Amino acid sequence: MTGLRYSTTGPGMALLTAVFTPFDEAGELALDTVAKQADALLAWGSPAAFVGGTAGEGAALSTAERMALVERWCEVAAGRLDVIVHVGHASLTEARQLAGHAERVGAKAISAVPPYFHRPETVDALVDACAVITDAAPTLPFTYYHIPSITGVHLRASDVLLAARERIPSFAGVKFAANDMVDLQRCLHLAGEQEIFVGVAKLVLAAWQWGARAAIGSVYNFAGPLFRQMLDDAARGELAKAQEYQLRAQQVIDAAARSGGELTGFKALGSVLGVDCGPCRPPLPSLGPEQVAVLRAEVARLGFGVDGGR
Amino acid sequence: MTGLRYSTTGPGMALLTAVFTPFDEAGELALDTVAKQADALLAWGSPAAFVGGTAGEGAALSTAERMALVERWCEVAAGRLDVIVHVGHASLTEARQLAGHAERVGAKAISAVPPYFHRPETVDALVDACAVITDAAPTLPFTYYHIPSITGVHLRASDVLLAARERIPSFAGVKFAANDMVDLQRCLHLAGEQEIFVGVAKLVLAAWQWGARAAIGSVYNFAGPLFRQMLDDAARGELAKAQEYQLRAQQVIDAAARSGGELTGFKALGSVLGVDCGPCRPPLPSLGPEQVAVLRAEVARLGFGVDGGR
Amino acid sequence: MTGLRYSTTGPGMALLTAVFTPFDEAGELALDTVAKQADALLAWGSPAAFVGGTAGEGAALSTAERMALVERWCEVAAGRLDVIVHVGHASLTEARQLAGHAERVGAKAISAVPPYFHRPETVDALVDACAVITDAAPTLPFTYYHIPSITGVHLRASDVLLAARERIPSFAGVKFAANDMVDLQRCLHLAGEQEIFVGVAKLVLAAWQWGARAAIGSVYNFAGPLFRQMLDDAARGELAKAQEYQLRAQQVIDAAARSGGELTGFKALGSVLGVDCGPCRPPLPSLGPEQVAVLRAEVARLGFGVDGGR
Amino acid sequence: MTGLRYSTTGPGMALLTAVFTPFDEAGELALDTVAKQADALLAWGSPAAFVGGTAGEGAALSTAERMALVERWCEVAAGRLDVIVHVGHASLTEARQLAGHAERVGAKAISAVPPYFHRPETVDALVDACAVITDAAPTLPFTYYHIPSITGVHLRASDVLLAARERIPSFAGVKFAANDMVDLQRCLHLAGEQEIFVGVAKLVLAAWQWGARAAIGSVYNFAGPLFRQMLDDAARGELAKAQEYQLRAQQVIDAAARSGGELTGFKALGSVLGVDCGPCRPPLPSLGPEQVAVLRAEVARLGFGVDGGR
Repeated sequence: MTGLRYSTTGPGMALLTAVFTPFDEAGELALDTVAKQADALLAWGSPAAFVGGTAGEGAALSTAERMALVERWCEVAAGRLDVIVHVGHASLTEARQLAGHAERVGAKAISAVPPYFHRPETVDALVDACAVITDAAPTLPFTYYHIPSITGVHLRASDVLLAARERIPSFAGVKFAANDMVDLQRCLHLAGEQEIFVGVAKLVLAAWQWGARAAIGSVYNFAGPLFRQMLDDAARGELAKAQEYQLRAQQVIDAAARSGGELTGFKALGSVLGVDCGPCRPPLPSLGPEQVAVLRAEVARLGFGVDGGR
Repeated sequence: MTGLRYSTTGPGMALLTAVFTPFDEAGELALDTVAKQADALLAWGSPAAFVGGTAGEGAALSTAERMALVERWCEVAAGRLDVIVHVGHASLTEARQLAGHAERVGAKAISAVPPYFHRPETVDALVDACAVITDAAPTLPFTYYHIPSITGVHLRASDVLLAARERIPSFAGVKFAANDMVDLQRCLHLAGEQEIFVGVAKLVLAAWQWGARAAIGSVYNFAGPLFRQMLDDAARGELAKAQEYQLRAQQVIDAAARSGGELTGFKALGSVLGVDCGPCRPPLPSLGPEQVAVLRAEVARLGFGVDGGR
Repeated sequence: MTGLRYSTTGPGMALLTAVFTPFDEAGELALDTVAKQADALLAWGSPAAFVGGTAGEGAALSTAERMALVERWCEVAAGRLDVIVHVGHASLTEARQLAGHAERVGAKAISAVPPYFHRPETVDALVDACAVITDAAPTLPFTYYHIPSITGVHLRASDVLLAARERIPSFAGVKFAANDMVDLQRCLHLAGEQEIFVGVAKLVLAAWQWGARAAIGSVYNFAGPLFRQMLDDAARGELAKAQEYQLRAQQVIDAAARSGGELTGFKALGSVLGVDCGPCRPPLPSLGPEQVAVLRAEVARLGFGVDGGR
Repeated sequence: MTGLRYSTTGPGMALLTAVFTPFDEAGELALDTVAKQADALLAWGSPAAFVGGTAGEGAALSTAERMALVERWCEVAAGRLDVIVHVGHASLTEARQLAGHAERVGAKAISAVPPYFHRPETVDALVDACAVITDAAPTLPFTYYHIPSITGVHLRASDVLLAARERIPSFAGVKFAANDMVDLQRCLHLAGEQEIFVGVAKLVLAAWQWGARAAIGSVYNFAGPLFRQMLDDAARGELAKAQEYQLRAQQVIDAAARSGGELTGFKALGSVLGVDCGPCRPPLPSLGPEQVAVLRAEVARLGFGVDGGR
């Protein structure tokens, strides 16, 4: 097992993109869009696509759809881009099927949230659940996806990290999508071989200051180059300039969140500033053209996304 | 659409059983057990099995397993017992498949929790999500399953009731599994054609005093006759006697909850007092033989489950 | 110790009024209003005033103001009306002073929330805190005031009841202002010598069906006669009529809650339908004349408070 | 108004001590201990005592006790140490009295939590409540004390910062005692003239990396020199060494928290490693000698507090 490391080549930070899932107006998968998404990532240097996660509305897809989507990503990414497949599911049985499939079709790695209907109550139960999944794809590095606001599983990610690396040979790290400073700091302190992927876009710069070397997020679908620039500024010592940008990015995120929720707003921004991936699936709302225009104008006032999507 | 009413024939209350899903020691479906479960329900007069819900660990099953389970129940129940199929899923696409399948194989009705990964944020979005499901099985009465402690969807059930009956032709009522007195009371006040199924076993008697006429629960897997007796006592005016029993039942439930969580404890009690349905699936814990013995003894001290399971 | 029982004389329910504290426009105590409040309670038969509680903004008063208010109430109520003094405080030292004062000036009973800045973490610590207070006023019956949404103390009231009656000689019962059905039902089951005062106006009728015999609330400042009538209807067997009223009362409460919060809205309704007690103190908002008019009109549409305040 | 800035003299961070309140075994104020506390702070260079806050159990004291305590601190600190008085109270009337008193007896500054029984629901209402307090002590810098886990006031501190500096002439900053990374980062970004005092000891180093220049905490009652050393290491560029220490400090804090809660455990550690301030007041628990010994041993195993309190 080689782990899953992206950030060894310089002072910066690897920005992996949690890609949206493209739907047509009827809400069906629009797989033709995937090649455009892959090209867009390559264009600014995102080293991997995280497929079927929260931003990818993986939980809203059927298992068959998730597999079709992953196959398409593996095809278009082959040799150019890593594909990390989110295989988390309320049913571990389904999650295993998704994991085995990912391994067969050439994914680079897998990741999973814990079961989120019946939930693990202890760290041991959680790690056992992860092991059920990883046993179905033992050759792929596995990243635990910590997002308690959605899963309702509030066990500390740093405790999961400590237990999982003893128990799961393919354990490669944590995608940390929570707001708890103490837990993130402890993850960063304790991570040795493992990678901690920052999953909160508002905190990328701050986490970099704490030593984080990689992030996974959906904001990079439309603002990747800008975050890239921000981190380059920081790495060159221009911290004030970088902080100024981070603060503006937070305002953009707040604006998107006010437009029907962060995910709906991000997907709408992605459609106008990046590759159009269509509406969200129910129960998530989608924005109408006027709402998108209002959001775009608000974001433009923040100096964001003018000039051809930049 | 004829609705879903069970309780018109007397002063008592219909007790529908949220059946456990039988697993073998390897955690695989043990479908041979289903016939025994159906016989047990018929023996004490439960009019329906609620299949694949919370107690049935539906979310831990794959879609294929859920379908196989439902088919088995429809076979053994045919002409003797109603089968109500829980089709709720984080993916509405999967939920639709489950709903259509239930209709084809002869279920009496369907029920669903709302999507619980990406969640509806408004009553309208929630009812829209329900409509997506009911459109796939338009001939079956549909009951909204309200269980916010698990789904994280805290929208008031009484507001859902009001909106859903305007919007969904097959809307038949609410399974109310929450602890909010005001919302339950409002549901009971506002229910006209619809049925409110009490989903909190600790409150069955109290809800009966408020006019509830039906309940769905997993405690009836092993304590059905006792609850039946309690409600008969109440209907005959022996309220003090009934309350005494309800209080003891609450202690039994608390004891089960202390043994690895309510569901794990209930399934263990079911195995020794009713039909043995095997262990829970991960991430739920299962009790070892010693823990089961301790729980059984504690419950027996409460005068419960001695004398051949009664 | 004789306890604190109000409800032995018939099938109805005693309705004690949690009185507002009258302020002038500058926010200073307007003690002249107290006599009018007492007369209003006597006019429709409320047997007691609960002074300085949540609705009375006791926590917003200084200790000196609380004492002055209590003295005024004891003067005007003497021989006509019971005065129950809320002495709860974040500081047990202050609470003891309030308790001793209440005893000296002729209050009938005391009540207290638990400390709510540093909070008791166990039932024992909570009961110990209550005992610190009752030791300062040993001749007065003491009622534990359970209102977890405000105090943040979520320990089950029924557990407090069981422990407090073993430990505190003057323990007389629980004022239950929470929405947890299971806990209320258990309190009612377990109360022997003690009284359970229902503190949620939306649930008075339902709690009566469960055997509750007394309530304390602020809604009786302006709707006492109507609740009185509702309970008389219920006691005569006209349950449907009573439920119809309760449902409307809930809508009135919801309307008040939408107008700046339940307490602000209630105090405003009290000012136009009962005795004018002036504005709330900061940090609670107060309604302007136009907002009061809108609220009054909304309430009148519900058939409430027309015809001279009735 | 000169603000309240401590951190202009170098790359390090000012560590202000939230002092414990000394009680004797009967739970009465032990004011003789205050001089020893002041000497201890001066010995390692803490520039100010924060008196009567959370760690000081201010809310458990009567107003008279709070004033006596503050007077004693102002006497012993005069000319040597700043005294910052926490005047927050559920009653703004009492808070004003505390503020005016602090000004009269020579305090350097005041600070307050928002009212925490009746709570402000909006940023405007919160800032209005702060203004009620500051009007009573207009010459003293005022720091808003943000500690939502205790007060239940979850309004974003960064929004309070923006509004308060427009509205309150003496507004000097925020004591930030919460775990929300995004809000803290935004406070640090937006603070111009104002100071952000880090109130979470586990995060002092991390906040320093983000630009924080001052902290207030109770851990400095017994571990001040060690935190001082940690920050000096960091300022010299020895970040790994500093992080190692911070990680161990987190374990000490966790150990204390397991011993009856963080405050109880801290006060016990203070008694053996610093100045003995006696037990906590109810409803907080206090540790017996054996529990203290266990805690001390656990802490010593972490290399903490051996060798004469260091």
